[in-house]
Amino acid sequence: MSDLRVGVVGVGVMGADHAERVARKTSGARLVAVADADHGRAEALAARLSEWPAGGESGSTARHSGGTAYGEGVRVVEDPLELIAADDVDAVILASPGSVHAEQLFACLDHGKPVLCEKPLTMDAASALQVVEAEHKLGRQLIQVGFMRRFDPEYAALKQLLDSGDLGRTLVLHNVHRNKSAGPAFRSEMIVRDSMVHEVDVARWLFDEEITRITVHKPKPTSVVGDGVFDPQLAVFELANGAIADVEVFVNFQVGYEVRCEAVAERGSATIGLGSGVFTRAGERWGGTMPADFRTRFEQAYDVEVQRWVDATRRGEIDGPGAWDGYAAAAVCEAGLASLSSGTPVEVALADRGNVLGT
Amino acid sequence: MSDLRVGVVGVGVMGADHAERVARKTSGARLVAVADADHGRAEALAARLSEWPAGGESGSTARHSGGTAYGEGVRVVEDPLELIAADDVDAVILASPGSVHAEQLFACLDHGKPVLCEKPLTMDAASALQVVEAEHKLGRQLIQVGFMRRFDPEYAALKQLLDSGDLGRTLVLHNVHRNKSAGPAFRSEMIVRDSMVHEVDVARWLFDEEITRITVHKPKPTSVVGDGVFDPQLAVFELANGAIADVEVFVNFQVGYEVRCEAVAERGSATIGLGSGVFTRAGERWGGTMPADFRTRFEQAYDVEVQRWVDATRRGEIDGPGAWDGYAAAAVCEAGLASLSSGTPVEVALADRGNVLGT
Amino acid sequence: MSDLRVGVVGVGVMGADHAERVARKTSGARLVAVADADHGRAEALAARLSEWPAGGESGSTARHSGGTAYGEGVRVVEDPLELIAADDVDAVILASPGSVHAEQLFACLDHGKPVLCEKPLTMDAASALQVVEAEHKLGRQLIQVGFMRRFDPEYAALKQLLDSGDLGRTLVLHNVHRNKSAGPAFRSEMIVRDSMVHEVDVARWLFDEEITRITVHKPKPTSVVGDGVFDPQLAVFELANGAIADVEVFVNFQVGYEVRCEAVAERGSATIGLGSGVFTRAGERWGGTMPADFRTRFEQAYDVEVQRWVDATRRGEIDGPGAWDGYAAAAVCEAGLASLSSGTPVEVALADRGNVLGT
Amino acid sequence: MSDLRVGVVGVGVMGADHAERVARKTSGARLVAVADADHGRAEALAARLSEWPAGGESGSTARHSGGTAYGEGVRVVEDPLELIAADDVDAVILASPGSVHAEQLFACLDHGKPVLCEKPLTMDAASALQVVEAEHKLGRQLIQVGFMRRFDPEYAALKQLLDSGDLGRTLVLHNVHRNKSAGPAFRSEMIVRDSMVHEVDVARWLFDEEITRITVHKPKPTSVVGDGVFDPQLAVFELANGAIADVEVFVNFQVGYEVRCEAVAERGSATIGLGSGVFTRAGERWGGTMPADFRTRFEQAYDVEVQRWVDATRRGEIDGPGAWDGYAAAAVCEAGLASLSSGTPVEVALADRGNVLGT
Repeated sequence: MSDLRVGVVGVGVMGADHAERVARKTSGARLVAVADADHGRAEALAARLSEWPAGGESGSTARHSGGTAYGEGVRVVEDPLELIAADDVDAVILASPGSVHAEQLFACLDHGKPVLCEKPLTMDAASALQVVEAEHKLGRQLIQVGFMRRFDPEYAALKQLLDSGDLGRTLVLHNVHRNKSAGPAFRSEMIVRDSMVHEVDVARWLFDEEITRITVHKPKPTSVVGDGVFDPQLAVFELANGAIADVEVFVNFQVGYEVRCEAVAERGSATIGLGSGVFTRAGERWGGTMPADFRTRFEQAYDVEVQRWVDATRRGEIDGPGAWDGYAAAAVCEAGLASLSSGTPVEVALADRGNVLGT
Repeated sequence: MSDLRVGVVGVGVMGADHAERVARKTSGARLVAVADADHGRAEALAARLSEWPAGGESGSTARHSGGTAYGEGVRVVEDPLELIAADDVDAVILASPGSVHAEQLFACLDHGKPVLCEKPLTMDAASALQVVEAEHKLGRQLIQVGFMRRFDPEYAALKQLLDSGDLGRTLVLHNVHRNKSAGPAFRSEMIVRDSMVHEVDVARWLFDEEITRITVHKPKPTSVVGDGVFDPQLAVFELANGAIADVEVFVNFQVGYEVRCEAVAERGSATIGLGSGVFTRAGERWGGTMPADFRTRFEQAYDVEVQRWVDATRRGEIDGPGAWDGYAAAAVCEAGLASLSSGTPVEVALADRGNVLGT
Repeated sequence: MSDLRVGVVGVGVMGADHAERVARKTSGARLVAVADADHGRAEALAARLSEWPAGGESGSTARHSGGTAYGEGVRVVEDPLELIAADDVDAVILASPGSVHAEQLFACLDHGKPVLCEKPLTMDAASALQVVEAEHKLGRQLIQVGFMRRFDPEYAALKQLLDSGDLGRTLVLHNVHRNKSAGPAFRSEMIVRDSMVHEVDVARWLFDEEITRITVHKPKPTSVVGDGVFDPQLAVFELANGAIADVEVFVNFQVGYEVRCEAVAERGSATIGLGSGVFTRAGERWGGTMPADFRTRFEQAYDVEVQRWVDATRRGEIDGPGAWDGYAAAAVCEAGLASLSSGTPVEVALADRGNVLGT
Repeated sequence: MSDLRVGVVGVGVMGADHAERVARKTSGARLVAVADADHGRAEALAARLSEWPAGGESGSTARHSGGTAYGEGVRVVEDPLELIAADDVDAVILASPGSVHAEQLFACLDHGKPVLCEKPLTMDAASALQVVEAEHKLGRQLIQVGFMRRFDPEYAALKQLLDSGDLGRTLVLHNVHRNKSAGPAFRSEMIVRDSMVHEVDVARWLFDEEITRITVHKPKPTSVVGDGVFDPQLAVFELANGAIADVEVFVNFQVGYEVRCEAVAERGSATIGLGSGVFTRAGERWGGTMPADFRTRFEQAYDVEVQRWVDATRRGEIDGPGAWDGYAAAAVCEAGLASLSSGTPVEVALADRGNVLGT
């Protein structure tokens, strides 16, 4: 089957990331078009991502001279709606400002184009409901919303643990969401709309329930923010099943980015966001789980190794340990086997690298 | 530029993983051929990886009926050397038994094929040196060895920290390498050859120095192993620059898989393998670093989100939060903004899901 | 100066602990009397704590035959008010039920006796205020309340850090208070009165401010408790300075006892109750501090060593490493010095223990 | 029974600590005499520790006017051997230089005085053996050696875990011993004699076996030390039962003080010195144990609370939360009970502190 041809609308920080992801790290997809109100940055991005192999020098691609790299490149489309409608675009990533989402989503629905839409879906509940209804009329789900935490390995493992029932019913969530700093244009409402919205999805998803009531507390703000701005905020969500979540959002924490979630259940609690997987308190113990084997532990290493080897090989290079490293390891292991047998220190007899490699 | 066409030789646990990685998770590469002494498992794997979209049902691929999925599938080649020589194979991954590596590596060099060779390079230092020399004569590096730890984010961050000089010169390494259990066929030599070899590469790589002497101590073995088998083992590596590494390898640890490395330097120590990034003791403190922003923290989540969205979209499905989730979040945020303003609890007015979606 | 002569009123779990603490672990104090509504347990405790040296056998005290152990013993007093009034009682520990605290506290004030009163001070705010006023009229503070967390090394270090101003002004507290299980007689009110009361003191003490408003949320309870019982509870405290604390109290957590406090300040957060001192997120890092030297690290070990040595010596015994351990260490160090000099393994020449000690 | 009357020989850093410990923190003991080659510091210490209550002002002791504080004070003895022989000294703590230990220990044995002797027992194995033999002839153990780690709660818990057999037989120890810095007079031998000696005792004690062979490796030293000084050092101990311990000692680590011990056993490993109790890897999990109840968690807090209350009470003061704190807590809890019942925020009605206390 041929690759999915993807167009990206909006190539600010998030959209540019997604465009590069599709072009360089995603299997089975190809970036074909980008659109942005700022045409300059769209063109710069398209040029950068049309080059391949990334970082390659002109000479190193000689052996692939039959390629049609630029012919297969990324084009810039002026009008987002034109990109959405284009025949050579199979699917769309929307990373444009939230205020234009509604129009662009309706266009995707009209053209039957699957779309991955960064949050927020739209700017208010009424227009979001119209989108839901329009999609429903199509009889087919085309819209996915960019609540990416559901794909984070830690959140996914937490969800799996809670759903397993091992800890009993989940009773309470304690969530923390902190950014290093927010710009000067920051207003209190943005905490709710841009940050807390992730916690809203996390609570709904983990409990598989709707939120029925919300209280937002305003502690006396940090002195970093201007008058009338409330940061941090402390929200309490009440869910349809009687569960409760409290959420701290603090976007001028100064320290760094931190997202944490502790689920308190009938027979234990589980926390993620500490950087060490799912940390549980259960069965009179605190801690986490050991990886079962090397594939679990080093899965990401293998992924990166192979992706970088493919990228380098396409450039005619290698990008990792070479034959000498394999040889040196063999020589040490040989000496190690002799020491294992004798129980005494054994010298490693290594050929002279300069002699062998002429360096 | 066209995708790199990869052939995999040896599709046991490791080779099958690599084959799937190339087929499903690596951008810019295509799996075209596999070979294995066990033809049955080569054919099963080829069939599984030729199917696309993975997990798709027959109906869901209807809209891509023009595709040539099976025509582009993965073929099985009987003879590994034939696979290496094949015109439609641009590059090779060797995951065959170490005892046949030498012959296959020479074939790769003969055909000018880039090769990612799982460790060990070959079974002894003498034959490994012949490989090094043969590649050197070609005047071009074609061989990369599968010491994948160099690509692990934790090891890479440790290497970067040590190379930065922030902690001064590195003096000592303490390494631990534990497997849950080894099979009954396990012999003492395998600890050195199959497990300790990774620590050999880690020590050489982190210090950027060769190992000049090795001592392997044999503590009284765990009672799990049979007579005459030494597990755990404790090795001391002495390096050309006077640094020392000690390495525990214990392949019947019972608990799980664990790989740990502590580098002790002049002004602090840094440990990885605790599952929480680089853990340092430096400047009167212990701990780690906060992620700078959400892209660092959630990079893997974004990668997975987009890969799964692409995979699902190619099947004509979605695989993540849908429009209703976007709508519900919008409704809660609207209530949150009202509570932020009033300071009191606010009910969330959500449309009736059954009414809207007819479910 | 002579020792402080202490009487303990109420020798249930907490009072018996305090009585033993005064008798066995506190310098400068002597337990002279106990009272309890259950005379039997008061007498059993008095008998046990009058014996000295604890755990000593009859023979081993022979050399101290001139002692007057039993003449100096702990007597049982029927009436708590009589104990409070007794001439040979310099100070009182109240560990009786809260319902009799008011009367006993007034008695202490009447007799000018310093008193350490377990929480609660009294059962309601009105009677507590009368106690405050009565003490104030005396012109001298005699009453200390048993909010022992202020003396916990972790809480004390947290308080010191927050007061230092290093993290800026404290904005929010997140507190967690969990017990393994509460008995069947447990009622919802006890969470507030017996458990949350500690969090009330912690919040007042850390902020050095009064609490002006409290909201107690009732999530759907754990299924372990009976109908109409609310466990866990989630309280929000608002303080006079605009700060906010949220507090989870969960007395049937099943896992174990857990008390945690995270203080979120303008330039970082600090958490205690993880069992590893003050854990901070500050200056782009997470973690804690290294002990400066061995006295900080091993202070408790030295205290225990000397207390146990004194106790054993009074019994005519030793209770720790003996002369042979000192000799064996000397022999290994001598061999170690030889190895340090030669760089090779050195055998340890140890005398035969059986020959030397005839064992 | 009367208190144990203790004399301390040698009041440098360690001896002064011990003297204060006996005088202020140990139940059942009284410091009666000190001796030191530096008479000035012996007198300063005696004067400081004769004052009681510590930190008290003259006026505050008025009500104890019948006391005989100075009559019961600490006297300075010129000759250590005279202190050891003195009739009013029941037991001795030796914290003098190791070079005079042998003579002073023989004196203790001659006078039948129990003695707690700081390490080393003596300066070499031969003289240490003479001490062992002399004590053995007495037929009674009088000597305890100051290997205080055996009394550290973490080491004690580790020993208990290993002895329980839950993890199977212990196979290997990995020990780390780091100091922030050593003075300029530091010589390589001191690592073995003063620091590694603790690891020697730990290995002997945990395995309950003698060490039969030792190898001391010398990595290229940190650049902080002068020529010819070896720091860090890496020792390998081989024990009579075939177990092995490796030990890093690094006395110029710059960061802080760190002592760590990982015991690797047949079914898991256990580490202490991370500051969070016994950290295990066992049963597919990593982590530690939750405290069972508040007495375990807050034992030290209770000890400190009561010791400080006793000390303050003897000075006629209080040193902790007072009646107002008890009242304020009662008022908040009353409001909390109202909120528990109503589910809404409740204001806390607190009397005006200034009115009540006139402050």
